[in-house]
Amino acid sequence: MRRTIEWRNGTVATIDQTKLPHETVVLEMRSCNEVADAIKTMKIRGAPLLGVAAAFALALTAYNSKAKSKEELIKELEKSAETLKRTRPTAVNLFWAMDRILAKSKNFFGDTKELIAFVVDEAQKIADEDAAANRLIGKYGAELIHDGDVILTHCNAGALATVEYGTALGVIRAAWEQGKKIKVIATETRPKLQGARLTTYELKKEGIPVTLITDGMVGYVMYKRLVSMVVVGADRIVTDAVINKIGTFTIAVLAKEHNIPFYVAAPKSTFDFSRKSDEVVIEERKPEEVTHAGSYRIAPEGINVLNPAFDITPFDYVTAIVCEDGVWHKKDFGKFKANFYK
Amino acid sequence: MRRTIEWRNGTVATIDQTKLPHETVVLEMRSCNEVADAIKTMKIRGAPLLGVAAAFALALTAYNSKAKSKEELIKELEKSAETLKRTRPTAVNLFWAMDRILAKSKNFFGDTKELIAFVVDEAQKIADEDAAANRLIGKYGAELIHDGDVILTHCNAGALATVEYGTALGVIRAAWEQGKKIKVIATETRPKLQGARLTTYELKKEGIPVTLITDGMVGYVMYKRLVSMVVVGADRIVTDAVINKIGTFTIAVLAKEHNIPFYVAAPKSTFDFSRKSDEVVIEERKPEEVTHAGSYRIAPEGINVLNPAFDITPFDYVTAIVCEDGVWHKKDFGKFKANFYK
Repeated sequence: MRRTIEWRNGTVATIDQTKLPHETVVLEMRSCNEVADAIKTMKIRGAPLLGVAAAFALALTAYNSKAKSKEELIKELEKSAETLKRTRPTAVNLFWAMDRILAKSKNFFGDTKELIAFVVDEAQKIADEDAAANRLIGKYGAELIHDGDVILTHCNAGALATVEYGTALGVIRAAWEQGKKIKVIATETRPKLQGARLTTYELKKEGIPVTLITDGMVGYVMYKRLVSMVVVGADRIVTDAVINKIGTFTIAVLAKEHNIPFYVAAPKSTFDFSRKSDEVVIEERKPEEVTHAGSYRIAPEGINVLNPAFDITPFDYVTAIVCEDGVWHKKDFGKFKANFYK
Repeated sequence: MRRTIEWRNGTVATIDQTKLPHETVVLEMRSCNEVADAIKTMKIRGAPLLGVAAAFALALTAYNSKAKSKEELIKELEKSAETLKRTRPTAVNLFWAMDRILAKSKNFFGDTKELIAFVVDEAQKIADEDAAANRLIGKYGAELIHDGDVILTHCNAGALATVEYGTALGVIRAAWEQGKKIKVIATETRPKLQGARLTTYELKKEGIPVTLITDGMVGYVMYKRLVSMVVVGADRIVTDAVINKIGTFTIAVLAKEHNIPFYVAAPKSTFDFSRKSDEVVIEERKPEEVTHAGSYRIAPEGINVLNPAFDITPFDYVTAIVCEDGVWHKKDFGKFKANFYK
């Protein structure tokens, strides 16, 4: 596959991320419900990719629709959107992509057939925009990276989390393509191990030197001065904080304590300046993800488990945010927010 | 078994900790080499238990000895000690216990037979002293705990890491036995998962409410104000820092950032005031512990891995140390060190 997700005339193709790095299985989905299931089970994951997947899911609904009027089609799209919104609550890109398609559909002037084509086109446009945004994020972010830097990243904010190229890994990839001599430390990212399974896989494919550590080793590598900077992605950036994969805040606190820059790389589809962090639902996933590693049970039965999929990193811990508009340093966050919706 | 390790007339019995929580397998060892293997493979683990196991291993050497003179026996004991010292370099208790037995053996006045009996007795005494120390640590440490406290602990510093009762878990156990209404949050402690496998198992057996989290969730639970204090064990306490299971320093930094007390509970056999932290060898274990969870491979082949088994927490992050002499607050560490060998 050329991209992590592709529209192929009524089929949405993607890589089943639960099977990596052992097998590369292409998943072909033909209905909104199939996409929703793939999102719930994390066969599709990564905030930007979730947005594009939701857009393509609506495209599938439109493509397969027998609706006789635009109103009927919009009702079907709204029903599909409801299903998709129940999959995962935290990453905002999913909501953003569907709200965009629904709003534009409601204001659409053509006939039903034309609206169907429009929805498919708009989903494709969202995918293309994500790819373009990642290239720009890479370009701007790479300016922060210098020869000899060791970049610590968490979870997977790579090509697999986006349409292509990646956000945090896009920044790393761009620096590498510029010939900068860099190394990466990847945290394994329990419970779902996206760092161990996906980030190491992507970087190894690219030839970028990567060292895998457990999440508890972040303090050790910083104490030993083995890290120059942290670059992570985001699932939602709100007015006061970055919401990202569980474990991000732990790394941010350690970075601050060691005076190591902490950068967040994310497209504007991840920004939600209508909310503060305490107004965002943090998804609590099933306990089996923690009591097991893969299908192997590691803990005794009958104990309590916490399994928040995300945590909250207040802006105080964030050195800069990189988006397709450029690099925004902490002191300019206020200005950035004020102009965001203009 | 009444204790985690027992001397049974020429056999040392212990629980194979790699099999827990799924199976309780009693391991019977009849030679020093069998004990050394069990230590290397972490069937026996936990700093205080390593000390006692090494003592019993020397007792096995003595018990099975055909030595015709004390000098010959002491040579055999020294050879066994060399083997044991090559198993794991970081926890000091192992070195401490053998040095004690060897020093006393060299100054022993009786005949060879009597020296054999003495070595066995001294090993048993080290075991008994560890059990007594843990009770005292529990008694003193429990004074730091109040009704409603939620105590976060890392790795396993429980009965399974000692002869019985435990250090960090001894403190928790003592508070619970005093009727204090407490809860525990246990970190799973990758890569070897001692928290998920052993700490939850011990606490569940005791009826103490325990919630399991991944190591990356520590920041989240502190941010959400779900933790009143941290209590951990130690593998070696040197002049400037506590050396303990990898992940400890990460937790200590987070505790400091959130003004949460960080307590270390350890018997005096863990103290090594002859060294600074940068003079201690931090054991690097095999990469497979990180690339796999149990026997299940989680990462692609051909990537780099770091696997330090321990990290260093400078005293600046430690609120107090609890040992069998009482609770030593940070401001008194100097006095404590100055009087330690007197």
